[in-house]
Amino acid sequence: MACWKRGRFAVTVFAVELVFLILFGIFAEYRYDVEVETRWFYPMFQNVHVMMFIGFGFLMTFLKKYGYSALSINFLIAALVLQWHILFKGLMHFSPGHYGISVGLTDLITADFTAAAVLISFGAVIGKTSPLQLVVMALLEVPIFAANEYIAVKFQASDIGGSMVVHVFGAYYGLAVAKTIYKVSQSHHENESSSYQSDIFSMIGAIFLWLYWPSFNSAIATSEEQQVRAIINTYLALASCVLVTFAMSSIFDRHARFNMLKMSAHPECNTRGGVAVGTSANFMIQPWGAILIGCLAAVLSTTGFEYLQPMLEKKLRLHDSCGVHNLHGMPGVLAAVIAIIAVSFANVERYGHELGETFPAMANTTDGARTSAQQAGYQAATLGVTIAMSLVGGLITGLVLRLVPGLDQPDEHYYYSDAKHFLVEEGMESLSSKASSDADAQEVKETEEKI
Amino acid sequence: MACWKRGRFAVTVFAVELVFLILFGIFAEYRYDVEVETRWFYPMFQNVHVMMFIGFGFLMTFLKKYGYSALSINFLIAALVLQWHILFKGLMHFSPGHYGISVGLTDLITADFTAAAVLISFGAVIGKTSPLQLVVMALLEVPIFAANEYIAVKFQASDIGGSMVVHVFGAYYGLAVAKTIYKVSQSHHENESSSYQSDIFSMIGAIFLWLYWPSFNSAIATSEEQQVRAIINTYLALASCVLVTFAMSSIFDRHARFNMLKMSAHPECNTRGGVAVGTSANFMIQPWGAILIGCLAAVLSTTGFEYLQPMLEKKLRLHDSCGVHNLHGMPGVLAAVIAIIAVSFANVERYGHELGETFPAMANTTDGARTSAQQAGYQAATLGVTIAMSLVGGLITGLVLRLVPGLDQPDEHYYYSDAKHFLVEEGMESLSSKASSDADAQEVKETEEKI
Amino acid sequence: MACWKRGRFAVTVFAVELVFLILFGIFAEYRYDVEVETRWFYPMFQNVHVMMFIGFGFLMTFLKKYGYSALSINFLIAALVLQWHILFKGLMHFSPGHYGISVGLTDLITADFTAAAVLISFGAVIGKTSPLQLVVMALLEVPIFAANEYIAVKFQASDIGGSMVVHVFGAYYGLAVAKTIYKVSQSHHENESSSYQSDIFSMIGAIFLWLYWPSFNSAIATSEEQQVRAIINTYLALASCVLVTFAMSSIFDRHARFNMLKMSAHPECNTRGGVAVGTSANFMIQPWGAILIGCLAAVLSTTGFEYLQPMLEKKLRLHDSCGVHNLHGMPGVLAAVIAIIAVSFANVERYGHELGETFPAMANTTDGARTSAQQAGYQAATLGVTIAMSLVGGLITGLVLRLVPGLDQPDEHYYYSDAKHFLVEEGMESLSSKASSDADAQEVKETEEKI
Repeated sequence: MACWKRGRFAVTVFAVELVFLILFGIFAEYRYDVEVETRWFYPMFQNVHVMMFIGFGFLMTFLKKYGYSALSINFLIAALVLQWHILFKGLMHFSPGHYGISVGLTDLITADFTAAAVLISFGAVIGKTSPLQLVVMALLEVPIFAANEYIAVKFQASDIGGSMVVHVFGAYYGLAVAKTIYKVSQSHHENESSSYQSDIFSMIGAIFLWLYWPSFNSAIATSEEQQVRAIINTYLALASCVLVTFAMSSIFDRHARFNMLKMSAHPECNTRGGVAVGTSANFMIQPWGAILIGCLAAVLSTTGFEYLQPMLEKKLRLHDSCGVHNLHGMPGVLAAVIAIIAVSFANVERYGHELGETFPAMANTTDGARTSAQQAGYQAATLGVTIAMSLVGGLITGLVLRLVPGLDQPDEHYYYSDAKHFLVEEGMESLSSKASSDADAQEVKETEEKI
Repeated sequence: MACWKRGRFAVTVFAVELVFLILFGIFAEYRYDVEVETRWFYPMFQNVHVMMFIGFGFLMTFLKKYGYSALSINFLIAALVLQWHILFKGLMHFSPGHYGISVGLTDLITADFTAAAVLISFGAVIGKTSPLQLVVMALLEVPIFAANEYIAVKFQASDIGGSMVVHVFGAYYGLAVAKTIYKVSQSHHENESSSYQSDIFSMIGAIFLWLYWPSFNSAIATSEEQQVRAIINTYLALASCVLVTFAMSSIFDRHARFNMLKMSAHPECNTRGGVAVGTSANFMIQPWGAILIGCLAAVLSTTGFEYLQPMLEKKLRLHDSCGVHNLHGMPGVLAAVIAIIAVSFANVERYGHELGETFPAMANTTDGARTSAQQAGYQAATLGVTIAMSLVGGLITGLVLRLVPGLDQPDEHYYYSDAKHFLVEEGMESLSSKASSDADAQEVKETEEKI
Repeated sequence: MACWKRGRFAVTVFAVELVFLILFGIFAEYRYDVEVETRWFYPMFQNVHVMMFIGFGFLMTFLKKYGYSALSINFLIAALVLQWHILFKGLMHFSPGHYGISVGLTDLITADFTAAAVLISFGAVIGKTSPLQLVVMALLEVPIFAANEYIAVKFQASDIGGSMVVHVFGAYYGLAVAKTIYKVSQSHHENESSSYQSDIFSMIGAIFLWLYWPSFNSAIATSEEQQVRAIINTYLALASCVLVTFAMSSIFDRHARFNMLKMSAHPECNTRGGVAVGTSANFMIQPWGAILIGCLAAVLSTTGFEYLQPMLEKKLRLHDSCGVHNLHGMPGVLAAVIAIIAVSFANVERYGHELGETFPAMANTTDGARTSAQQAGYQAATLGVTIAMSLVGGLITGLVLRLVPGLDQPDEHYYYSDAKHFLVEEGMESLSSKASSDADAQEVKETEEKI
């Protein structure tokens, strides 16, 4: 029994990898993307890849005693999701005689997008969950993500930067999990703070995210004009967002200081412009539109940290470790709403020959082209479906994490600390060191007795 | 009044962003660069982008108590400059019936070059200026930079890596500001040193700068041969510079140690080859020429730190926080001089069909082609104009920063410290903690009384 | 004499750079790669470049008192090797009337591969060698590396990711050096451990290596299909390797913790899939094959750290600072063996028109095509020659480092510490501070007396 307790993480992960191996063995084939210009695509893919592993990984090191976990579990979860999404998406599209599961460069990048969604959800629950719980969450989230993505594709919704299918989905999924596993001891925990060094490590992540966001929002564009537009719009939204974030952050402090130790000056706020422009990045929203979107995102995100998050914690008993509601949830909804408005104004005068490229369903097709109002409707429907599926999916996942025994749900001494799952040097253990070393001694004794 | 004191940073930044929004709204249009191969250009742009935000940002974290400020203000200033330069350059080139302000990929990269110049100036004054002062400096520097750049273009000067228009300009502008705001308390301040951790953070910046310098020096090349040559020359100059920097640095210590805590072994010295080869990177200077330039740059930069900088501080009462004179000023002048020499030897025998591509003014045009001596003259004139404009511009800016009230010029307790503008954990405050906490208490009291 | 003692590092490095300058001056010429698509090649090159300087550099910061040295010496050695390999390879291929030494983009990337081999060898001896010893090692290793590479080319062995010529060579060369300079005081030294901060710095390196490994393994592919296949195979091997590394690492701890302070959970283990797939990355090993290789690499690397390394240290008196045997040696041999097996199954049915592209010697040439068994034989011969040359070369180099006087071989107080060759702040000196400050005082006295 003690042996199982010790080995269940390893056994689970080995089993998962073995299943992956078998499924890849049966179904997977190489695909060479003759339709995509491979050699253009790869640098874009690498930028997005850096965002997932360096960007999200280092961003989450802001907790002063949770650096090992943030980086390592981010790494583990993302590597799992990459394989699982390639498999699951391939199986969904499987039809005999055709490909089995194709593996091409575009599959690698959509796998990275899926990893983004799961890592966003991870952000809502870091410090309160075990590695094993997170493996289970990742396994459950990918199929629900893929199903929602499938609906968005069927609806022919435009969402080039994935602000709906990645950010909104990931955020509300994670929040639903966080709500379900909430315990009052998660709030105001002594470990939940940053240090000077951890804040600087966190900036590595934030800045790489900020830099490569134009690649994230433009990678899957289907024409060169759209790609350039997506790059420019994202760049401008990101730049304006930085200025407004700093201004907002100084307003919230009575001495007009920037408070990097507090979430309202979270370094990632500066990148919110990238999310908020994500759905409409390839639209002709004009440079001023992109700049305005960046400003709105900064206001929304910083006020969310300052006012909404404490309220959600108090009223809804919802603890959001990284503030993903402020960083991904609200800016993602903003992106969706902006796109709905922008689509309503889309017409041939404005877009010329690009109308059909940007909104394929609005091109003059045989079964009748959509009007811009209809396209706006489908965009709204996609947002609605995404929120619904993420909340329900997250709720179910949260119940699994809470109720299934043996998933190593951490005790409160170990919240926001590496000390349970990593061997750490003295001084970096949980602050409530007495409690934890007692618990540790207890556990050691238990284990030894049973072996 | 207290309220204004508290809010003036935020109000200024909001106002700036609002003006940007309006100007972009009136004038800006997308431009799709059919003449540039977009998909080749973008990875180059991203390398330069990383240099500005990760490179310069982390490089400036070397001060042990100024990490938040270095990273954050670098981020804020660069994001401001990106927008402001696109606008200002566009307005300068404005002619009715033509574009308004065009926004294309090449505009993004020239905006990044401008950010480089402003961040270099920032390097001369970090730790001695408030965020609000730096916002004002950035607003003033961009138009002067753009005017100087305009002259260089009119002179048809060759400066592919911007060693004159970016490095020399940024350095002497910053030095003129530093001279104007000098106070004796800036020298030998107890906060002005690095720590083991801050030096390692600084290396992140230095190494990314070193790695991507070939992109900086080759991004705007107008032919593939020039681009390859600029990459190779920069790469070789950077490699030889590293060896000579280490050798010089060991000479300066009596135990032949590398002194990373002292500026003569500043990690950025290793990148000086990139600056020194910047003006002539696309010329046929030959591999040995590039290597020699890298060696000279290392000698100049390290001896500058060891001998010239203390002298400037003592004799000229000029305190140069990052040593930008050694890192950008002198290597930039060296680059300009090397280019003047190299141009003098440029002829058809040496360059073949590339002569006209490399030096358009020397091609056989209708209004008579320049001789190589004439081209050398224009190069020299550009250097002269650049130094003059940067010194005068910096002087005026320094006077504005010094004399205009309400720009939050920091007291000497707060030099080289985050403690004034960032909330920091205990122990990372100013070393003169008594003084600063007194000052703080004082200010709090004041603020509270007046509200 | 004291003066020579102080200056010999500087004099050596100046002399090396001077010789480089002269050789480049006599022989080197630009080459513009019309045969390679330059603009595709450059982003790949930059990824590999980041791996060498950020990847290897930060990876080696894991020792808590050796961060300056790890980063700086990595930087110095790599910059030296880049120049030396371009020169030496050029001189080897020199034939009158043809090129002298050509310098093109492909030469820069092969120079980076050579740097990888030398940095791997460096990994076996860090903390136990002086900068001057390492300069000598780099100077000796490059010619032996180039000779071995030449044989591999003559054998027409396939080794796209250099798992044999780079990883196996670098590892066994370094191990032979480490064995030769072994002293018992190198084992179980009090300085030889990591800290919380140093482990996180180390992750910067590990993650960048992991991210860009697909570029390393695909950069020199000769067709687009091979390139895509190399990218996909490497990506999948890397992803599966992460899961198995975590699982293995939790098995080795009695509380199922991940032990980042111990080498069995060394962050670089996660990247071993990239090495193990390196020789066969462009083969049609199928996605499942790549995943299986990643799993095997993780098992081999983690068990190597846990069981084999302590045994080698005890039985063979071989101290391997970074565990390069586990990280590069064994996974490299695994890669070679896998490739031998995979080649044996290579035929026209499986590869179609790509057979000749992938294995040029097996194409129907005028002097008779190789069979797949013959190709497998040549692959095996290349592995054998590589191991032999690296061991003999390393042995000779080790003897030189050990026996030539005046190379600054550090005393045992200074093992795994920056304190001898860098000026460090208090507290970061050698733990055996009394001993070392005594030694220091001694040396200062000596120096002063003799000047």
